[in-house]
Amino acid sequence: MVRNPLALAVFAAVSSMQAIAAEPITPIRPAQEINLAQAELGKKLYFDPRLSRSGFISCNSCHNLSMGGTDNLKTSIGHNWQKGPINAPTVLNSSLNVAQFWDGRAADLKEQAGGPIANPGEMAFTHTLAVSLLESMPGYVNEFKLVYGEDGIDIDKVTDAIAEFEKTLVTPNSPFDQWLLGDKDALTVDELAGYKLFKDSGCTACHNGSAAGGNTFQKMGIVEPYKSTSPAEGRSAVTGKDADRFNFKVPTLRNVEMTYPYFHDGEAETLTEAVDIMGRLQLGKKFSDQENAQIVAFLKTLTGDQPNFALPILPPSTDKTPQPHPFD
Amino acid sequence: MVRNPLALAVFAAVSSMQAIAAEPITPIRPAQEINLAQAELGKKLYFDPRLSRSGFISCNSCHNLSMGGTDNLKTSIGHNWQKGPINAPTVLNSSLNVAQFWDGRAADLKEQAGGPIANPGEMAFTHTLAVSLLESMPGYVNEFKLVYGEDGIDIDKVTDAIAEFEKTLVTPNSPFDQWLLGDKDALTVDELAGYKLFKDSGCTACHNGSAAGGNTFQKMGIVEPYKSTSPAEGRSAVTGKDADRFNFKVPTLRNVEMTYPYFHDGEAETLTEAVDIMGRLQLGKKFSDQENAQIVAFLKTLTGDQPNFALPILPPSTDKTPQPHPFD
Repeated sequence: MVRNPLALAVFAAVSSMQAIAAEPITPIRPAQEINLAQAELGKKLYFDPRLSRSGFISCNSCHNLSMGGTDNLKTSIGHNWQKGPINAPTVLNSSLNVAQFWDGRAADLKEQAGGPIANPGEMAFTHTLAVSLLESMPGYVNEFKLVYGEDGIDIDKVTDAIAEFEKTLVTPNSPFDQWLLGDKDALTVDELAGYKLFKDSGCTACHNGSAAGGNTFQKMGIVEPYKSTSPAEGRSAVTGKDADRFNFKVPTLRNVEMTYPYFHDGEAETLTEAVDIMGRLQLGKKFSDQENAQIVAFLKTLTGDQPNFALPILPPSTDKTPQPHPFD
Repeated sequence: MVRNPLALAVFAAVSSMQAIAAEPITPIRPAQEINLAQAELGKKLYFDPRLSRSGFISCNSCHNLSMGGTDNLKTSIGHNWQKGPINAPTVLNSSLNVAQFWDGRAADLKEQAGGPIANPGEMAFTHTLAVSLLESMPGYVNEFKLVYGEDGIDIDKVTDAIAEFEKTLVTPNSPFDQWLLGDKDALTVDELAGYKLFKDSGCTACHNGSAAGGNTFQKMGIVEPYKSTSPAEGRSAVTGKDADRFNFKVPTLRNVEMTYPYFHDGEAETLTEAVDIMGRLQLGKKFSDQENAQIVAFLKTLTGDQPNFALPILPPSTDKTPQPHPFD
């Protein structure tokens, strides 16, 4: 028995670290090693709808930082009110993903950031037009120069800055993380029972790591096939391998209370529905109503500190700025 | 001659106040007498796209506080990408307006706030649905109760809170206001020459007061008729009087560098163009290129401190929250 107070404290700390290490989900760390100047510039770009053909759609339109980094729609609304093919994944904690997009077709945030700008169904712009637009505004020209230490704007810098901003969008300090870090009162009995069920049922086989997902691709519909009208085929669109059909990146469960609706097609409107479907299709397990409610209670403890920053003020256009084309 | 230092100071202060009083444009005052709790709630509502049928359009979509409180489009994009009939006026300093909308059909901000929510061409929702939606979220239910000191949400409280937030959106401290307040170095020679031209040419007949506009209705096209394809007829739509045809609320010139494009139809893309047209049609005066440039230089000194606040985080929907209908 350890009686020395210091030894006791060390023992407790080591036990606590072992407890963390033993859990399949680990705490989210606050943002580190951020180039703040790049991130501040990236924040402006993230909120700037002039990077779309219409002048109306920004990154924040579909990855709304007031709403869990999503649009809370089954599939997104793109240029000219086009219906998107897939549910917008949250940008929160996306720096922790193994790759970006549901099918992982972008290696990292920087590569991802260029996609929607040039996607005809989303922002419907081009990289060339985006750069010309930014070059027409002294506010941006000067900030790019200050941030990158050289003249000139190109799409590489644009996506680099957006990615740097997105790296700041981590959400530490959720009740579950507080529990992981040793505050045993941070979770209720039901929430803790939900976590135990979540682990014991095998959910953590895919939803693990600090993002509780995002780090592997898995088949949607392992035990039973998933029926969907969505045309998305997942990872096979990238690898060309038939074996990868319906393999999607496992979504993070961080802030999942805020990122409804669920799945790549957004067809599960509630967490209750999502947990039920996941249990049956992925694990061959039918959760009772009580079990489902406990797992949902646990999932809601994954909501962390949301991004906290001042709404950016964008540099005004000038007489040389190309006009938006919302209706033609 | 006054030799006593105190008397001198008093004399200087009185002179300075007389100078301010003598100018047709007066300084914007910072927000005062704000119910902060209401304003904070109103900020959430202002940013909440769930108050639209699609779940995609919020007040901030068309009155974007990153962009001078406008969308910088000729006419706005509404539900299902409908083309709006008129240019979105800035929400900045709108508390100083004599009435709201270009035709003044709403007496105040509170009455205005209900308009776009229920307009089929804009947010395409109904007040009843908006209230039901808010009532489904404990985050909102509790905040309304705390703010208003009683149970229940109704459209009256919703628009009241939005209006209170909008009252905070004043933009004091522009270079021109610094000049008005006595800093004679706040304007360049050209800017000051532009202001003198602006006054001497008669622009201040309509663009006066602390908002440099917004306080009267005036005919668009006094000396020469204004040609527009816009169906908007202005004040006559409210009064029913033929004499009020093409009478519009004089827009504020505060932050006008940020609120492009100009006029009720948004047809003037640049300040240069707007100044030229205003001179000819309203005053029968053709400004030289130099005069135009000086007036534009003056107008750009009307950009004040932009709203500075943290992006609000919205309460998540619940299983009871009505689903958005973006595509049906």
